Amino acid sequence: MDLPDSASPTARRGGRGARERILDAATTLFYRDGINATGVDKLAQQANVSKRTFYQHFSSKTELVEKYLCHLEDGAGLERERVLQVDDELPRERLLALFDDAPPGRMRGCPFHNAAVEAADAMPGVDDVVRRHKLAFTDRLIRLAEALDAKDPVRLGNQLAVLLEGAGALATSLNDSAPLAHARAAAEALIDGAIDPVVTPAGRGRSGDR
Amino acid sequence: MDLPDSASPTARRGGRGARERILDAATTLFYRDGINATGVDKLAQQANVSKRTFYQHFSSKTELVEKYLCHLEDGAGLERERVLQVDDELPRERLLALFDDAPPGRMRGCPFHNAAVEAADAMPGVDDVVRRHKLAFTDRLIRLAEALDAKDPVRLGNQLAVLLEGAGALATSLNDSAPLAHARAAAEALIDGAIDPVVTPAGRGRSGDR
Repeated sequence: MDLPDSASPTARRGGRGARERILDAATTLFYRDGINATGVDKLAQQANVSKRTFYQHFSSKTELVEKYLCHLEDGAGLERERVLQVDDELPRERLLALFDDAPPGRMRGCPFHNAAVEAADAMPGVDDVVRRHKLAFTDRLIRLAEALDAKDPVRLGNQLAVLLEGAGALATSLNDSAPLAHARAAAEALIDGAIDPVVTPAGRGRSGDR
Repeated sequence: MDLPDSASPTARRGGRGARERILDAATTLFYRDGINATGVDKLAQQANVSKRTFYQHFSSKTELVEKYLCHLEDGAGLERERVLQVDDELPRERLLALFDDAPPGRMRGCPFHNAAVEAADAMPGVDDVVRRHKLAFTDRLIRLAEALDAKDPVRLGNQLAVLLEGAGALATSLNDSAPLAHARAAAEALIDGAIDPVVTPAGRGRSGDR
């Protein structure tokens, strides 16, 4: 679950380029209202551009969907995923920070996953961006699992990827952030079970009941 | 992940009522192509009814979305979830069967979750049906966790719910069923960790490396 930072209505700041305003409008509207529910008219209105200007920057709405996802990867969103990069935290803490509670508001889950649900094979370029993002993200989890000395880092990284995807998806279905806490507890158990006890420093919060 | 049984184009069988044909068309098209990408024209064409007939049976497309989800619960789909009810399997096997590999074809995940992604607060009745379904499903997982003598059945049931949601969602994002296998391995570890070793019958496949 990666909430874009700019989930509030896009402000119309003077002086910025039309292309950036359209991408900001897409970041707000595609995430909050959905991709297929958001037409070019609404995007152009929110970005304060004409439809002619819209199509000068993006050949189609589908192209904008791809660019919106790349824009999120470039730093417009994905705050939750960025916790993996906090270098002064231990790998275990970085992995568990993925499951921190969500801010209040409508739960909308991962914008990449939501795009896959809506693309439904009608936007192959979008499917490619989503798949590439999920594989790269899982790879980062595997690298952190290696840093943890997990016995099978590929297995642990993939399991944590499933848990995070499930937390975001179930939070969306329930409109409740409780699945994040359940996923975090499961992540702790899986991490602890994946580490050889003899190489684990004492006092790192391993549960003692098994 | 609960693949509706009727994921192939709905056959136009003679003699069935228009309402049933419309629900079958919705089951096929909403799941495969998405809800917002499927208009009433296409639904009416697929169901071989006029738009007038469509609106005689459903006051709006939104009403059809709600009825489509209830239709899935009534037995038109959700094959994956039905494995929980196989009485001649042990609770552990029933829970793990949730994560059996998916049939080939485009991965589309859980139709209830997908409806929540697309509804995006614009269809409150749909949100209610999704939430009710997810809570009832989690409750069935908790009952099976109780039958397993899990130390904390509510915790285990919720963790398995997150895992299954994540398997379906990540399978959709990747268009690959591999997340089901990762989720299954995680489910086994969580189930085994949640059962007190002294009351577990020997030889039930508990992992011995922790």
